[in-house]
Amino acid sequence: MTKELSSERLARVRRVLANQRLDGFVVPRADEHLGEYVPPGAERLAWLTGFTGSAGVAVVLADRAAVFTDGRYTLQLAAQTDATLFEACHITEQPPPAWLKAHASIGTRIGYDPWLISQDGLDRYRNSGLELVQASPNPIDLAWTDRPPMPAGLALPHPLAYAGRTSAEKRAEAAATLQADGQDVAVITDPASLAWLLNLRGSDVDYTPFALGFVLLRSEGSATLFMEPAKLPPETLDWLGPDVTTAARAVLPAALAALSGQRVRVDAAGSPVWFAQTLGEAGAVVVDGADPCQLPKACKNATEQAGARAAHARDAVAVCRFLHWLDEAARSLLTEMAAAERLLAFRQEIADFRGESFPAISGAGEHGAVIHYRATAATDRPIRANEAYLIDSGAQYPDGTTDITRTVWTGPDAPPAELRDRFTRVLQGHIAVATALFPHGVAGPHLDAFARHALWQVGLDYDHGTGHGVGSYLSVHEGPASLSRAGRMVALAPGMILSDEPGYYLPGAYGIRLENLLMVRAADLPAAKKPFLEFETLTLAPFDRRLIEGSMLSAEERRWIDAYHARVLAEVGPGLGRTERDWLAAACAALG
Amino acid sequence: MTKELSSERLARVRRVLANQRLDGFVVPRADEHLGEYVPPGAERLAWLTGFTGSAGVAVVLADRAAVFTDGRYTLQLAAQTDATLFEACHITEQPPPAWLKAHASIGTRIGYDPWLISQDGLDRYRNSGLELVQASPNPIDLAWTDRPPMPAGLALPHPLAYAGRTSAEKRAEAAATLQADGQDVAVITDPASLAWLLNLRGSDVDYTPFALGFVLLRSEGSATLFMEPAKLPPETLDWLGPDVTTAARAVLPAALAALSGQRVRVDAAGSPVWFAQTLGEAGAVVVDGADPCQLPKACKNATEQAGARAAHARDAVAVCRFLHWLDEAARSLLTEMAAAERLLAFRQEIADFRGESFPAISGAGEHGAVIHYRATAATDRPIRANEAYLIDSGAQYPDGTTDITRTVWTGPDAPPAELRDRFTRVLQGHIAVATALFPHGVAGPHLDAFARHALWQVGLDYDHGTGHGVGSYLSVHEGPASLSRAGRMVALAPGMILSDEPGYYLPGAYGIRLENLLMVRAADLPAAKKPFLEFETLTLAPFDRRLIEGSMLSAEERRWIDAYHARVLAEVGPGLGRTERDWLAAACAALG
Repeated sequence: MTKELSSERLARVRRVLANQRLDGFVVPRADEHLGEYVPPGAERLAWLTGFTGSAGVAVVLADRAAVFTDGRYTLQLAAQTDATLFEACHITEQPPPAWLKAHASIGTRIGYDPWLISQDGLDRYRNSGLELVQASPNPIDLAWTDRPPMPAGLALPHPLAYAGRTSAEKRAEAAATLQADGQDVAVITDPASLAWLLNLRGSDVDYTPFALGFVLLRSEGSATLFMEPAKLPPETLDWLGPDVTTAARAVLPAALAALSGQRVRVDAAGSPVWFAQTLGEAGAVVVDGADPCQLPKACKNATEQAGARAAHARDAVAVCRFLHWLDEAARSLLTEMAAAERLLAFRQEIADFRGESFPAISGAGEHGAVIHYRATAATDRPIRANEAYLIDSGAQYPDGTTDITRTVWTGPDAPPAELRDRFTRVLQGHIAVATALFPHGVAGPHLDAFARHALWQVGLDYDHGTGHGVGSYLSVHEGPASLSRAGRMVALAPGMILSDEPGYYLPGAYGIRLENLLMVRAADLPAAKKPFLEFETLTLAPFDRRLIEGSMLSAEERRWIDAYHARVLAEVGPGLGRTERDWLAAACAALG
Repeated sequence: MTKELSSERLARVRRVLANQRLDGFVVPRADEHLGEYVPPGAERLAWLTGFTGSAGVAVVLADRAAVFTDGRYTLQLAAQTDATLFEACHITEQPPPAWLKAHASIGTRIGYDPWLISQDGLDRYRNSGLELVQASPNPIDLAWTDRPPMPAGLALPHPLAYAGRTSAEKRAEAAATLQADGQDVAVITDPASLAWLLNLRGSDVDYTPFALGFVLLRSEGSATLFMEPAKLPPETLDWLGPDVTTAARAVLPAALAALSGQRVRVDAAGSPVWFAQTLGEAGAVVVDGADPCQLPKACKNATEQAGARAAHARDAVAVCRFLHWLDEAARSLLTEMAAAERLLAFRQEIADFRGESFPAISGAGEHGAVIHYRATAATDRPIRANEAYLIDSGAQYPDGTTDITRTVWTGPDAPPAELRDRFTRVLQGHIAVATALFPHGVAGPHLDAFARHALWQVGLDYDHGTGHGVGSYLSVHEGPASLSRAGRMVALAPGMILSDEPGYYLPGAYGIRLENLLMVRAADLPAAKKPFLEFETLTLAPFDRRLIEGSMLSAEERRWIDAYHARVLAEVGPGLGRTERDWLAAACAALG
């Protein structure tokens, strides 16, 4: 976005704020579902600031404005946003409420949109002593005159062959949580929970097969789905069955008003505060409680687990073909965008490929250090000889969602010793998590340090979590568990799928990230006096042996790498042609 | 306690409850300061149930009762409490509110004493839908006719040579926290905070030099100390200076009533709910906030750090003399109690020894598996040949508090292979924490898994945290940081002292625990791009080489043990006589 355009939009928003008698406004990146991927018409943060990262918030005052994001997007924020218009801030080092406290005078009225912030999010501003007031309608929407319409993709059945359990079974399980907690109704606003609970998939946002809507789940197991009728074809209505009624989104306020006197569960951390406010005004008893679908959705059932293995085995064929192509391709033809397109083309040959699970990150050399880099026509550059190249990509299949990162050395010379040292430390961190054994009750934040140990020993680190949950033909970033230090203390449980992706980034030079998806399973330990868990590695593709410094590895680490590579060759090799298979055999040879 | 006595006391309490028209009562182990060590007159839980562990709660209903504690005390609870009177429960697996929900009918009125439970603690009961009502006076106090009087030890100055900073400096720092948070007054109920803030020490409870009292700290730095006048001699009043006024404990309600309209900080997790209730009724604005002394107290200043090193060096002489004596003593004379008394006698020869920092745990063989075992006349047994013996003890010196655990093999035969395996895994866990390097922002719960890794690999674990904070001539268990998985997410910071004490326990057979105290300091890492921290080991005493299986160690682990033992010999040896020094030299020889 040009400075002129950004400046003009900011001025327009400030005029709207003045009309609404507001001194400021909070512009979250989120839409009404408070999720990560949002439809174009809800990209308010990008429209205003140019920043397209998946996490962030802007705050606009009359005389200054700022954009806040985390370490993954620091470089991207600087590149996309005009620093003379928006101060760039690290969201944990200087959170928006602290910035506002520093720059807003007493009595300043800061507007917020109750559809775009959770109760907890709002409380963080108010606990700082700020006066936040509802802005209605949203000032950005008034200023954004050519805002795209909301998507209207169809919501379609997600067959039992993939889902593994009927919606009735899932609703009964989630409803049992409500009964146990003495609640009458739960508000479901996360489209991933909607998709899981009702066995539906859609196409309303890129990369994730969401059909956007809201659900009220009652404690006896019935539900109402709030979604535009045009999105619900007859086959879907049949699929939903008699215990799931449907209503247009516009009916939602009236439906909430009818809950007067009932105990309604709303997720204070994950649902728009509009729900708690509207229910409160309607005389319902609002009870804070996690989305009851969150935990059962994260623990994939046996059908979903088998699907994840099958999807990863198919995806691995595309990834290994791509890595071979990358290694062999005429280097002069290779750019970051061309490489990502080639990987997509390989995936398009895979059975049941439904699309990428997120925009691929294809970064050569210094671009690899931009943690969530996205190559565009403006930034695209050749992948050159003798540099590190990082590619982080994933796919959606009806039986599973994939996410893999590899970092390779383009050659032909041997890589520098420092790069090999860093790569090996990242790999050691990856292995430490992949081989972890731990008892029931351990949560992701307890394991994050395993992935950092080898880097910490020499004063290095990476500014992102070690891993995130992954859905089953759903979000590539799924809660509630993660392997992040700042993540929630949710005990890891069998069937959870998590990424294991430590990294190391030297700004201006290179980035390293090594990512496989892992699935939690029961461990078979004869000496154990209580149940232990371990990870099953789902992702299958070689780690670049040229970048592994064998002398730094323990015997156990070396054994793990050799065994993993042997497994990759055995499981992926048969799906490849001879040339590719020969290349994979060499890439998977035991370490010297 | 005999079954008859326990039964009679329980019946007496039930009669009082009936008179007070209560259906039940909650009996926490805590006193009015919600701390760990309580004076005899506040040992209500022990009086009622016989259970003397330092953490627990009983719940009495008309027809049933239960005692709840954690894994450290499971065996002790079973031994001390009559199971026909009190059901024994694990406090995290079946918390008291859940037990009450299961056993109390709707409308059951459960009494609580607002002096003995925090706001957060009370909320946990109420969030379960239980009706908790104030019981006044405390029913136990009515039934306990020969309750000992409250202690009346003197509060005496803690000189600057040990404290390092004046009370005025500390009050200014804590007051700055109140100013930053827009608060007028803070309620200080933790006697450790009182002792730190006012540079006072006393003798009201065993093992920790507390002078029990309460403080109101005002945002301009002045304070009022609520403590009986008889406990405050003229030298103490001089020491407190003009900005610290004193008042009798009975004045407290009136002093709170005078805070109407002011913003008062009360720690909802750490202070009795009585304060928030009384302040609320008085028209003050109660704001939840951590005790402002907690964090600065935990980060020892340079004087306290030097004191900690000096105290540990002196304490090590007693411990090493004891370990030599244990190894050489005629075994027929040795019992658990005699050994603990001998260690105490060695410590009594050390300069400035002020007492033990907790009751020593001296457990031979199967007693070692009782995590917080205390040898009594009834349980005392000989320390026999060819068994494991565990001793966990500590001392109070004016310059520092110590806490050390060693597990030794009594010989003369070689220990069994399994014991050596377990000991070595525990030692590997200890070393993994002691050698950890980590950036600013990492909290104890992130490091706990390092200590368990070697055990987890074979399905073993221990049911307690890896380490606790330690005060400076204060509590041997000090917040807010810990190395426990369930601990608070408090970033580790220079000057914090923490124990590193992984263990392994085979009930009925043996217990292993290996504990040193560590102090957080800045790490000097040339490659680091941000500040890193590491631990300095304070405790100096050999680990029993007979129990170390050298073949399981990495080269780094072996180097650490040899270097640590060389340091022990170099620093402790010169303070010993020839025979003891020769023994220490052999105990500290490099691993073969």
